[in-house]
Amino acid sequence: MAARAICCTGALLLLAFVSSSAGLSLDTVREFLTREEDTIVFSLIERARYPINRPAYDPVHLGDGRRLNASFAELFIRESEAVQSKAGRYQSLQEIPFFAYRVPFTLAPPYNFTSELYPAATFVNVNDAIWSMYFNELLPLLAKTGDDGNYAATVDSDLACLQVLSRRINYGRYVAEVKFRGDQQTYTSLIQAKDRDALMKLLTSEAQEDVVKRRVEKKAIVFGQSITSDGPIETSVNNSSGTDFKVNPSVVYKLYDQWVIPLTKQVEVEYLLHRLD
Amino acid sequence: MAARAICCTGALLLLAFVSSSAGLSLDTVREFLTREEDTIVFSLIERARYPINRPAYDPVHLGDGRRLNASFAELFIRESEAVQSKAGRYQSLQEIPFFAYRVPFTLAPPYNFTSELYPAATFVNVNDAIWSMYFNELLPLLAKTGDDGNYAATVDSDLACLQVLSRRINYGRYVAEVKFRGDQQTYTSLIQAKDRDALMKLLTSEAQEDVVKRRVEKKAIVFGQSITSDGPIETSVNNSSGTDFKVNPSVVYKLYDQWVIPLTKQVEVEYLLHRLD
Repeated sequence: MAARAICCTGALLLLAFVSSSAGLSLDTVREFLTREEDTIVFSLIERARYPINRPAYDPVHLGDGRRLNASFAELFIRESEAVQSKAGRYQSLQEIPFFAYRVPFTLAPPYNFTSELYPAATFVNVNDAIWSMYFNELLPLLAKTGDDGNYAATVDSDLACLQVLSRRINYGRYVAEVKFRGDQQTYTSLIQAKDRDALMKLLTSEAQEDVVKRRVEKKAIVFGQSITSDGPIETSVNNSSGTDFKVNPSVVYKLYDQWVIPLTKQVEVEYLLHRLD
Repeated sequence: MAARAICCTGALLLLAFVSSSAGLSLDTVREFLTREEDTIVFSLIERARYPINRPAYDPVHLGDGRRLNASFAELFIRESEAVQSKAGRYQSLQEIPFFAYRVPFTLAPPYNFTSELYPAATFVNVNDAIWSMYFNELLPLLAKTGDDGNYAATVDSDLACLQVLSRRINYGRYVAEVKFRGDQQTYTSLIQAKDRDALMKLLTSEAQEDVVKRRVEKKAIVFGQSITSDGPIETSVNNSSGTDFKVNPSVVYKLYDQWVIPLTKQVEVEYLLHRLD
């Protein structure tokens, strides 16, 4: 009976998926990804307001001399995500927490989320890689040295960066779903052959990636400039040395070049490999 | 003994205040307020990504048919602020929660915050007015109609707006402190006479307020435009009808004109009235 119930749930999920996924198109996917760029640049600019605030990332020392394995940042993010989980944030498949929660979903008003993803491949995500990239690679490029004691506000802004990077990169599942539907025959044979390299090649458009990288660099310039009420608006992309901007535009370029785009494609390939499960 | 201990604490606070307040100047205050404008515009743009999502603001219905007096938004903000309080966010006097918390401040690394405010006047804030203005006046101008079910993410972006508006407006305490020190004699006699009107007049510079309002409107135009990798950057302040921007620039102008600037001056006057306590 239990197995049958699960099987039934699976069939219902699949039915919901088939009937609801008509809204997904290459246009809506591109629009979403382009809009996320603004949120990413805003969140990086906001994190860069604070100095690095190193003590927030060291292992926590308790009053009794014991040392935890976790940092203040990790504890803060765990507790904040738990509140958001309880509030139903992760009912939307677009949002994936960095830590797993088993809190009851209680107070949020009910809402019937449609699933545009193939149920058996929905779970794919690279949050562990995003977490490690953010703290070890990106944050040192973003924040100036110093310590102003605003650890909670600082780590809250880290969480904002992590959430949008996770949503953007793991949106690769939606990208892959749209591409799969657009050329079902080609993808099916590559998936059945488990040919990762060929899938990656098929998913890659260097010209399109170049457009995206130049656009996010430009967004860092425009959104990170100092605006006066009368002065001219800075528009020169050549002056991107980083000294005049709140976040170095070349860091945002690098973020997309080295991490966002490659990790998104990794998500796409993993999703496709489960697309026929 | 208890009274003496409290008295001693007061004297120590005052000593800390006198020795640490050298860092505050008209320049640092202006720089802070100008930088907050960017954060405010970013946070409004982010809230405007979501539709109004009305069910998040209605009184919560429990499963058993009972109705709470609080909305999902209020419950979410209470729980989020409690986590931030536990994480020490409100150890900085620049941050004031919307709800009072008595949670122990435990896991954040220790930090010696200096107090640049006069201890007896630190408590001044207008968070209740900000809360009411935000939900009743600003939000309806900001968010489009609709319901996408992303209640937790939506209300999380409300909290970001509320936090920066609170920090910006209640920073009036710092503005007032700097102005008081710059002309101690004039302010002292007006404070002793409890002359609110004369204080308000002394704190008002319509020319300076006009510069600020035009600048935030311009920031809404620059930060809220759509950026393409090759196209020109929109610089025309004339085209601020709102249709091409993520947040209507005239709404941001109105926010400062009708609420941010008047509420800040209200904070300044209240702070000054307690500056000699």
